[in-house]
Amino acid sequence: MVSFECDYIAGAHPAILRSLIETNYEPLPGYGMDHYTESAKAKIRKACGLETADVEFITGGTQTNAVVISTMLHDWEGVIAASSGHVNVHESGAIEYTGHKVLSIPEKNGKIDPEDLRNYLVRFYSDATHEHMVFPGMVYISHPTEPGTLYSKRELEELSGICHEYNIPLYLDGARLGYGLMSKDTDVTLEDIARLTDVFYIGGTKVGALLGEAVVFTKNNKPAHFMNSVKKRGALLAKGRVLGIQFDTLFTDDLYFRISKHAMDMAGKLKEIIISKGWEFYIDSPTNQQLILMNEEQMAELGKYVTFDRWGVYDEERTIVRLATSWSTSDDDLQVLRDAPL
Amino acid sequence: MVSFECDYIAGAHPAILRSLIETNYEPLPGYGMDHYTESAKAKIRKACGLETADVEFITGGTQTNAVVISTMLHDWEGVIAASSGHVNVHESGAIEYTGHKVLSIPEKNGKIDPEDLRNYLVRFYSDATHEHMVFPGMVYISHPTEPGTLYSKRELEELSGICHEYNIPLYLDGARLGYGLMSKDTDVTLEDIARLTDVFYIGGTKVGALLGEAVVFTKNNKPAHFMNSVKKRGALLAKGRVLGIQFDTLFTDDLYFRISKHAMDMAGKLKEIIISKGWEFYIDSPTNQQLILMNEEQMAELGKYVTFDRWGVYDEERTIVRLATSWSTSDDDLQVLRDAPL
Amino acid sequence: MVSFECDYIAGAHPAILRSLIETNYEPLPGYGMDHYTESAKAKIRKACGLETADVEFITGGTQTNAVVISTMLHDWEGVIAASSGHVNVHESGAIEYTGHKVLSIPEKNGKIDPEDLRNYLVRFYSDATHEHMVFPGMVYISHPTEPGTLYSKRELEELSGICHEYNIPLYLDGARLGYGLMSKDTDVTLEDIARLTDVFYIGGTKVGALLGEAVVFTKNNKPAHFMNSVKKRGALLAKGRVLGIQFDTLFTDDLYFRISKHAMDMAGKLKEIIISKGWEFYIDSPTNQQLILMNEEQMAELGKYVTFDRWGVYDEERTIVRLATSWSTSDDDLQVLRDAPL
Amino acid sequence: MVSFECDYIAGAHPAILRSLIETNYEPLPGYGMDHYTESAKAKIRKACGLETADVEFITGGTQTNAVVISTMLHDWEGVIAASSGHVNVHESGAIEYTGHKVLSIPEKNGKIDPEDLRNYLVRFYSDATHEHMVFPGMVYISHPTEPGTLYSKRELEELSGICHEYNIPLYLDGARLGYGLMSKDTDVTLEDIARLTDVFYIGGTKVGALLGEAVVFTKNNKPAHFMNSVKKRGALLAKGRVLGIQFDTLFTDDLYFRISKHAMDMAGKLKEIIISKGWEFYIDSPTNQQLILMNEEQMAELGKYVTFDRWGVYDEERTIVRLATSWSTSDDDLQVLRDAPL
Repeated sequence: MVSFECDYIAGAHPAILRSLIETNYEPLPGYGMDHYTESAKAKIRKACGLETADVEFITGGTQTNAVVISTMLHDWEGVIAASSGHVNVHESGAIEYTGHKVLSIPEKNGKIDPEDLRNYLVRFYSDATHEHMVFPGMVYISHPTEPGTLYSKRELEELSGICHEYNIPLYLDGARLGYGLMSKDTDVTLEDIARLTDVFYIGGTKVGALLGEAVVFTKNNKPAHFMNSVKKRGALLAKGRVLGIQFDTLFTDDLYFRISKHAMDMAGKLKEIIISKGWEFYIDSPTNQQLILMNEEQMAELGKYVTFDRWGVYDEERTIVRLATSWSTSDDDLQVLRDAPL
Repeated sequence: MVSFECDYIAGAHPAILRSLIETNYEPLPGYGMDHYTESAKAKIRKACGLETADVEFITGGTQTNAVVISTMLHDWEGVIAASSGHVNVHESGAIEYTGHKVLSIPEKNGKIDPEDLRNYLVRFYSDATHEHMVFPGMVYISHPTEPGTLYSKRELEELSGICHEYNIPLYLDGARLGYGLMSKDTDVTLEDIARLTDVFYIGGTKVGALLGEAVVFTKNNKPAHFMNSVKKRGALLAKGRVLGIQFDTLFTDDLYFRISKHAMDMAGKLKEIIISKGWEFYIDSPTNQQLILMNEEQMAELGKYVTFDRWGVYDEERTIVRLATSWSTSDDDLQVLRDAPL
Repeated sequence: MVSFECDYIAGAHPAILRSLIETNYEPLPGYGMDHYTESAKAKIRKACGLETADVEFITGGTQTNAVVISTMLHDWEGVIAASSGHVNVHESGAIEYTGHKVLSIPEKNGKIDPEDLRNYLVRFYSDATHEHMVFPGMVYISHPTEPGTLYSKRELEELSGICHEYNIPLYLDGARLGYGLMSKDTDVTLEDIARLTDVFYIGGTKVGALLGEAVVFTKNNKPAHFMNSVKKRGALLAKGRVLGIQFDTLFTDDLYFRISKHAMDMAGKLKEIIISKGWEFYIDSPTNQQLILMNEEQMAELGKYVTFDRWGVYDEERTIVRLATSWSTSDDDLQVLRDAPL
Repeated sequence: MVSFECDYIAGAHPAILRSLIETNYEPLPGYGMDHYTESAKAKIRKACGLETADVEFITGGTQTNAVVISTMLHDWEGVIAASSGHVNVHESGAIEYTGHKVLSIPEKNGKIDPEDLRNYLVRFYSDATHEHMVFPGMVYISHPTEPGTLYSKRELEELSGICHEYNIPLYLDGARLGYGLMSKDTDVTLEDIARLTDVFYIGGTKVGALLGEAVVFTKNNKPAHFMNSVKKRGALLAKGRVLGIQFDTLFTDDLYFRISKHAMDMAGKLKEIIISKGWEFYIDSPTNQQLILMNEEQMAELGKYVTFDRWGVYDEERTIVRLATSWSTSDDDLQVLRDAPL
């Protein structure tokens, strides 16, 4: 069955598997001390246009969010997120497990509105009882967001400015960063993100790797003894090579960008199919995830041809359905959907 | 200066001090194993009309909330609270510190609307991804609520019914319970609360004690090895007598109810003064806390005569001002306010 | 029944009760913002000979240890303690509950031998895998120790020197500090402790207060936003006055030292009684707790006259029995023990 | 350079890479819901001779220990481990990070002596103050142990019996389980382990996989909502297939046992080389890790021919050196060591 369920239904990009095979018998030190990991870090720093960045690799997105947020927050602080943010909704309380509150702000198309952020901070510091409250100690945004939207460069600049003004880091969750960067509807580059955020991660799991995310600390702000904190959270991989080799491959010859671009081309075609079918969009997404509304009958019919994801409840009759492309989506896959008699 | 700042500006009711003096030289075992503590528990069980209740004493409200919630939740669960709930706003993240999320529902006059609760639960279990989310494992309500409102018996029955249906405990934070029970606008008794909730606490700190709250587990549901969990959270008092003697006194000859009744009589008069002055209410409170709106100028003037609390920001010009009565408020205190030329 | 069970079997020193009564109706701000708390802090600073010290009050010993240790350690650090240290044995895992390991060193008479400490640190940093281990981030000692022994000034200087060398704080748990300072077998003063430690606490609960401990940060090292962290751990008392007034009284006219001196005089006489009875000491204690060995028969007999504490198992036949004096021990109490026909 | 540094210096067994390639384009659901994962579970259940076992896959050893221990312990419990146990020494405090204490027992050749375990438990429950202590709620053993030793079937039966008597689970950390099972000096089979423990894990990372460990709950005792707890700890892999496919391959045609057997054959030859060289053993290890003592000069010389691990400090002159074999060790590798002119 052709699958549009999500962007992690396949294994890894074949170039990655090739690299794993080619390096397989080379004895390498553990815990990320190998030269492939070093090479991957250097390539990522270069791609970010930031030679001073600190790059670290972690196995998955929730793990990364928990590690980054809990090592960067002070004891008395929490992290601000959109109410729809992954850390607020879909991580089974992983942030709270580290002892920190997620301070939610009503989402707007999956994003934090800079005006809302400023109001939150102004109000917090004008509250006489804020010494009994959780201090806002970081701002978390996802880009692309959970429903697939993107921040504009202007919005990122505003968020970054506010964070700078209040002296708290801006953290960008880039689980699907490649798809965001290769969208034709974005004015944001990787260099912009490295410049405007204090820390972010470049998602691998959803962009062609077997697993792995690359955290980039952009302001000489990697937490002290970071490896210890990673280990303490059970997130240190013995065979760090598994992450290093994959990211080294992804950042060789722009592979990360090329496969993201492919996925976005496929997403453009997917969008055309959706429009031609007359299906209703839930939200206007410029990235690889397209969210549409369907009732049970429609989903039953669609399910005969392709797999998809029930993304959420919309109303009593309709469900939000996710159709996603990825590096592995082919024109043949799209043709199946196009030909489906719905 | 006469103080209407809050209900914990004075020491303890004189009867409590007398008891502490009279028992002072009696050697008693520590950690709540003394006979005064036993006596206090028996009296509270009786007042609740529930001979099978388990009663435990803890020093303060936030401590109590953290202990009760974290020992009753399962690992995968969080606690539902109104967005304005004390655990969600004013405990510096004490619940999250125990590794659990506070799942907030928009407040209505400081309360959780039973309909909103039901919708939350229905929606949660219909969400295909709820295995990646925090399970609702308890419902937290405060009574009186933070802004001083009260649940009706009907509302408590509805909340209790929903919790029962979903098999999750209903927990009532009674930091100011006495004032709620003695309100002339309530149809809820202590027996009702013992019957309708799974666990609740009877506030001492704000109702005449030096410190201390009495937790009541109503359904043979005291967590196993509770004393150990209390100790682990740093909440076990060596001289448990300090709590036992105070609650033994508070529940002798209805002292707890009598002093709460006094505070409510004073609150009634306070309300009349507010009306006569033409001050604007922020919310209609049937309990001992009256919230009104004032601008800076008004507050400066008021501050010449009495102390009050800046409860929160209302808008750019006005602040929500709290005036509270307690067991120690006197007619003379009220007269000062009445005479204030505002 | 006369009680030698422990040093917290009575209420509070009468002067403290008097202070609570005299101040009872004075309206005071909450959370330790009142002038008695300020006064108590000033008096403690003076008694410590350290005008720059930061003083904070917390309700009990385990709470204090958990707050101090968890706010002063970095994420990657644990606290070194003697294997017999209170934090390692008798706090139900309160330190681990904050996410930090207690790194235990074999005790010698309840103490950490400076040589053992140095060896531990040398060995840790020479271990190639120490990046996978918990870094020693603080040294915890109790003075008097759990079995009642004391560090000499020389030992404290050595411990302090090693901590300074490794740039980690030395923390002294003074739950029974008064009794240690007033021992005739000590050369350590309160000023010495303030000078040689980085943080310590002056115990109130076991030295005449109803409850309460005074934490002293000696090196301008009070953790940032400390009140928030205290609140987050459920340790912030609404009526902070309860702690402030007690310590203000204890540090007026040397009351703390006078009542400790009294307890030590009583301990001297207790020791004489033990010797005259021919009971075997478990350890040679220069403080208010005397530990002796008794079999079941002896304990049954002793229990007819006084209460005592079963401090621990010694061997298959004998138990370690604790007899303790305190501010409330009287000559009459001792006479009962002296007259007991054992 | 030929490497004897550890058993995780190479990538994965080629059969595993082959499986990853062959399945790469197959769309599979995430989070371990795929049929390879199901198949792997079935094969492991069969290899354990326990059709009712629950099998779950987690990325690494420390992660696994933290997840298993923290989800199986009650709030008031800690885990007993040998003082040399991985959870006590080399996990950066990952267990304490979950809020639980590691209760250490002096190790004997890396193992817990059943007699010591019994004494610990007897003593704990005879201690009058055990309500202020951390309850022993699980026993953790590693097999092979950290220095490479093995429990005999008799010892496992004794430990299991004691755990059963005290109603606490026995947990076996099998990071290197294959090497233990294929040792010629063991009488313990996988079925024995499944029968005698309550939960254990079969290590993949150190036995041929890229990453991954298989947890086996043997007594219908998988914690409720386990997936949620795994997610909450950041340990849920989006592409669960990566673990499922690897273990499916490892448990097809006894691959896991065959490659472990190979490593043990190589270890036998390694041991002969060590003896022939006259190097001193630190401990007599029947498994794939051989620990020997060398001074700096010897290590400098050895380092010219092969890589090795500085396992620990032995005394002022000598270091404990680890030489390990694995599935990837070849006769050629051994020849290099044999030929080294030391």
